[in-house]
Amino acid sequence: MKSDQWFSEIFGGTTAFSVLFSKKLYESKSLFQNIEVYDTPTLGRVLILDGCFMVTEADSFIYHEMLVHPAMATVGNAKKVLVIGGGDGGAVTEIVKYPDVESCTLCEIDPVVVEVCREFFPHVSSGLSDPRVKIVNEDGAKFIQEFKREFDVVLVDSTDPVGPGEVLFQEPFYLAVKESLCRGGAAVFQTESPLFMRDVFIKAVKGLNATFGRDHARPFLSTIPSYPGALWSFTLCSEAFDPTHQKPQTLPPYLSTNLNYYNPGIHSSAFALPQFVRKMLAG
Amino acid sequence: MKSDQWFSEIFGGTTAFSVLFSKKLYESKSLFQNIEVYDTPTLGRVLILDGCFMVTEADSFIYHEMLVHPAMATVGNAKKVLVIGGGDGGAVTEIVKYPDVESCTLCEIDPVVVEVCREFFPHVSSGLSDPRVKIVNEDGAKFIQEFKREFDVVLVDSTDPVGPGEVLFQEPFYLAVKESLCRGGAAVFQTESPLFMRDVFIKAVKGLNATFGRDHARPFLSTIPSYPGALWSFTLCSEAFDPTHQKPQTLPPYLSTNLNYYNPGIHSSAFALPQFVRKMLAG
Repeated sequence: MKSDQWFSEIFGGTTAFSVLFSKKLYESKSLFQNIEVYDTPTLGRVLILDGCFMVTEADSFIYHEMLVHPAMATVGNAKKVLVIGGGDGGAVTEIVKYPDVESCTLCEIDPVVVEVCREFFPHVSSGLSDPRVKIVNEDGAKFIQEFKREFDVVLVDSTDPVGPGEVLFQEPFYLAVKESLCRGGAAVFQTESPLFMRDVFIKAVKGLNATFGRDHARPFLSTIPSYPGALWSFTLCSEAFDPTHQKPQTLPPYLSTNLNYYNPGIHSSAFALPQFVRKMLAG
Repeated sequence: MKSDQWFSEIFGGTTAFSVLFSKKLYESKSLFQNIEVYDTPTLGRVLILDGCFMVTEADSFIYHEMLVHPAMATVGNAKKVLVIGGGDGGAVTEIVKYPDVESCTLCEIDPVVVEVCREFFPHVSSGLSDPRVKIVNEDGAKFIQEFKREFDVVLVDSTDPVGPGEVLFQEPFYLAVKESLCRGGAAVFQTESPLFMRDVFIKAVKGLNATFGRDHARPFLSTIPSYPGALWSFTLCSEAFDPTHQKPQTLPPYLSTNLNYYNPGIHSSAFALPQFVRKMLAG
């Protein structure tokens, strides 16, 4: 394996996921992070932030669909949506598939990520051009404080809890998200891998349980092969209800041919937790 | 990343999963394959067959539990079980947790794998010492032909469909497994990754559908981070019934504290297929 043709994400100094690339298309250092783009034969085009896989054309549809659709289906008829992080536009592209959405605000701290994704990931970022979308380049943890009872859905599409993503894993931020939600609204937080980032996962879910109530913050799981540990968690939270009690039965017609991962069966199934996850959250 | 301290499984020449190792404990070339054992700080002890991760102490519990328990729960009170492949003993160790099991035959073509796992993976292979277990070192595809209406459960714990595992992905073998099952019995086949081994997965599931009947061979999914693509499939088959119609409600007491992945919620959820998997099987 000639290292000059491979990109490797080394996780914790002890495991690595690597992909052969055919071409390095871009690299820059923004105010916030190092940004790289590669073309690869197996994963398609990939976006790397600070050395970590963030988007791959092969598997990011799983991440984006599972970040967005469980919350949208749970709330139903969401009109005002906020995405914090998610400068690649993948979450926004899923949100604008809903005709009921009237406004979608993307709060991404790093404008360079948005520019790079508009240029190199036109399919992933296509939703950013929708007229209902407004992009602000601010610190999400500060921006959220401006809003009380404002959003039907808030999606926290953070990077790992280091660097700019760190404040998005802290309880004052969780509380601000809760206060920004309309009655009957819901939020989703990406909460890392219960296998490879056990302690971060437990701390995040317990923090969300403390903020929203034990039965009102429910982790769910999916598989993102290019992320460390692959078994990935999100946590769906609502002040008003236990989100596992809302089980969508059918896909609306405008989504049924338009999704590659999510469907109502996947929605319900994602909340089933393996024994080891139950045990780590029970303690 | 100094390659002399890392083991890498390179998949298809284009992606790799690597682990830092603290010590190489063993390497030999048996009649069938190259066998390596490493100690690693993150994945624990790992078994490598022909350059591929086969067992890791960190995640193989997922594979072994999902290979065994959905079939055992579906059949209920299985008395005679056959495992083809699975020389690491992990599947057998799960099977002997059931007090109702009277005999468990392990047909592993390569005796060296069994010896190595007894020595280096005592926890994974512990079930091999159970008095109900009989080990035969034969070609599973030939061995199965000796049996008609014999087994309650057959588990096909194959390697990838290259080398000794190739015949275990062919329809004559599927038919022989079907004929070896008692009325009311069930078989599980590991059927690779729908993401990274799309064509092998489709061919396997369609071959099993042709053999057992379309509604009588049902793929289900789990996440095995150390396997290529991480999203991993198994297919549960029965001549007598649609296996998705059997939904266990509770874990028997002798299992409830004794499992790390499987539970009844995981059982039902595993059969929910993402849109892209439904589409690839619909064609």
